[in-house]
Amino acid sequence: MKVHIITIGDEILIGQIVDTNSAWMATQLNLAGMEVTAIKTVSDKLDDIKTNINASLRDADIVLTTGGLGATKDDITKKAIAELLGVDMYFDQELYDMITTFFQKRGFPITDAHRIQCMMPETMVKLTNKMGTAPGMWFEKDNSILVSMPGVPYEMKYLMEKQILPKLKDKFGAYPIYHRTLLTAGFGETQIAERIEHITDAFPDNMKLAFLPNLGEVRLRVSAYGDENSREAELKQMVDGKVTEIEQIMDNAIYGYEKDSIQNVVGQILLEKGLKLGTAESCTGGNIAARIVQISGSSAYFNGGIVAYSNDVKMKRLNVGEGTLQMYGAVSEATVREMVAGCTKALDADVAIAVSGIAGPTGGTADKPVGLIWIAIGNPEKTVTHKLQLGKDRLKNIEYVTKRALNLLRLYLLESY
Amino acid sequence: MKVHIITIGDEILIGQIVDTNSAWMATQLNLAGMEVTAIKTVSDKLDDIKTNINASLRDADIVLTTGGLGATKDDITKKAIAELLGVDMYFDQELYDMITTFFQKRGFPITDAHRIQCMMPETMVKLTNKMGTAPGMWFEKDNSILVSMPGVPYEMKYLMEKQILPKLKDKFGAYPIYHRTLLTAGFGETQIAERIEHITDAFPDNMKLAFLPNLGEVRLRVSAYGDENSREAELKQMVDGKVTEIEQIMDNAIYGYEKDSIQNVVGQILLEKGLKLGTAESCTGGNIAARIVQISGSSAYFNGGIVAYSNDVKMKRLNVGEGTLQMYGAVSEATVREMVAGCTKALDADVAIAVSGIAGPTGGTADKPVGLIWIAIGNPEKTVTHKLQLGKDRLKNIEYVTKRALNLLRLYLLESY
Repeated sequence: MKVHIITIGDEILIGQIVDTNSAWMATQLNLAGMEVTAIKTVSDKLDDIKTNINASLRDADIVLTTGGLGATKDDITKKAIAELLGVDMYFDQELYDMITTFFQKRGFPITDAHRIQCMMPETMVKLTNKMGTAPGMWFEKDNSILVSMPGVPYEMKYLMEKQILPKLKDKFGAYPIYHRTLLTAGFGETQIAERIEHITDAFPDNMKLAFLPNLGEVRLRVSAYGDENSREAELKQMVDGKVTEIEQIMDNAIYGYEKDSIQNVVGQILLEKGLKLGTAESCTGGNIAARIVQISGSSAYFNGGIVAYSNDVKMKRLNVGEGTLQMYGAVSEATVREMVAGCTKALDADVAIAVSGIAGPTGGTADKPVGLIWIAIGNPEKTVTHKLQLGKDRLKNIEYVTKRALNLLRLYLLESY
Repeated sequence: MKVHIITIGDEILIGQIVDTNSAWMATQLNLAGMEVTAIKTVSDKLDDIKTNINASLRDADIVLTTGGLGATKDDITKKAIAELLGVDMYFDQELYDMITTFFQKRGFPITDAHRIQCMMPETMVKLTNKMGTAPGMWFEKDNSILVSMPGVPYEMKYLMEKQILPKLKDKFGAYPIYHRTLLTAGFGETQIAERIEHITDAFPDNMKLAFLPNLGEVRLRVSAYGDENSREAELKQMVDGKVTEIEQIMDNAIYGYEKDSIQNVVGQILLEKGLKLGTAESCTGGNIAARIVQISGSSAYFNGGIVAYSNDVKMKRLNVGEGTLQMYGAVSEATVREMVAGCTKALDADVAIAVSGIAGPTGGTADKPVGLIWIAIGNPEKTVTHKLQLGKDRLKNIEYVTKRALNLLRLYLLESY
């Protein structure tokens, strides 16, 4: 099944917003076994919309459009579709009643714009939109499907998940597909590829491994594609078998599955072990603490942190020795070790993360170049340290160190408790 | 001048990456007075590339493509263009020498892939790419321009800024345009529109105001478009005059201009006034400190922060009274006032930001619902407080409070020092 995605909106063509809808839709369609062969953004002009939908209906089996619907826009998409399909518009009383109820509950007035919003092209199958007032619209023409959705991301996502993907699978009797995603940290794409080559080389033709790299991590997606004779249980068994083989090789480099995040996984381990965490940050400036706090419920295992940006704060609040700073400097193994000890004490924590480094782009010396980072994890009983030499991009360094420190904490907790 | 942007790459069609290149290019072209009428993403397949470039050459004056170039890809774009224009490929010795020097310096081996990379379509004008090994390619066909660039964002940006935009302006003798952007915080789009309506209503036909809203802020872009008789100095004078009028109305709501950020602006004020900042964060968990530290050189005015996530840390490290917490709770005006006082003392700071709230999505009570946030700014001599009632989206709340607190600090510093 070939799919075209058409985004309607001048705001994308002038660069005011980035089109993130299309990437999300492409991922979902791909996971459901449908191939996206083109993504287009067109203007709010009637002719542009008509020309592009028409061209896509020739080249694809399924055309999905977003945008150009709703009370504040002038509903240009509906007009374009009606003209293109040669159908009239009708007043949808059911939709008008729904919108009236919706606004009356909230105490908003009903205006003429809402009446216009209820003019719909004939032959449309209405897709209920519980997230807003503009419904999705489903059309069939010859052997093609044309679906129009609002451009608001959470409305589009609701319609895709609850209505359109199930209907498409139903209509095209899509074959079963099964995916699992392993999240790894600490190894690059080529390193992983080499280590598991003997497993992927033995994949049957209907299985695939995708490498999805990101800063400091690589996600591995294992997929099995069925045909008309496949049952999902078989595909699941195939995928699970290969996942187990990969797990045996990659071991602790796998930090989670599917939609896990490193801060979520670390939080779960701390919670299970009944441990309290503290952070002592210099160059990351609170970014590690902020990442931990992104998880709702983190107060159960996170006491707090000290952002020790000045040496003075390192000495006074984390008890780093003045002699240590003079002899080894703020960016040193000795300093991060003392930061760990001071942090567990100051925050009554069982375990601490400490980071000190030169985030850049300036501030390096011959001895200590930009990108030099020291990380320590532990407590006064047992502390492990790590040295990194990164590049000169300040924000990238901070982000990388944040992820790396959280992963090192994970490994420390798995090995030490 | 009508422009089409074509992004070539399967990784976008499967949703693996979001196409941010196109939005950036669209912004630049728009600022230069060129109209982007379509953005397309097509697969790495030869026929797809040919068909789409061909269609765009019919509909637009300028077609810009990114992706499908370079040593690891199979250079499919070059093949497509050569076939489309009916030209042969030739071996570009100059390019090969350049690549050889580049790799030898870095001690990398030269492979056959690099020889293939130097096969170029005839009639091409080579655009030197100082950020990588694949040059940009400029073609002219009938009255249209076709330009191909690598997809790596910093290579594309280099080629656009240094080569393509100047060449396009030169070629099409674009009329002068002048823009200025004002960054505002604290007012919504409609509030601003009403307040400055009398100014925008009096704009001449060749001037435009664009509202560019973002979480917690609205950017205002004032533009003047010239014709064949305009000089840039005149346009600048027109824009500057209107900017001055808007400044008089919006006053302190304007926090900066062009590419400023609130953390950058606040940093400059602290630096000028010779003041040291400290942060005391509960619900934002270090995010405010992390934002301040994004600015290189922030150590000159930022001492550090305390992330007081538990009540224990609030009491022990920020000297918040146990009685205060019992009587008013952690999310209260009394608590954030004491956090400010404790923070300035603990971190030897002249001024502090303190935040405590219920970030959500759970944890609210009838008395203190999710989204209730208290912010305090100041020091023991003078503290101002602000109460916010936000929604239930945890990450959005944290981001909004971070920006809001930094803007409140800016206003405090402007009024109090």
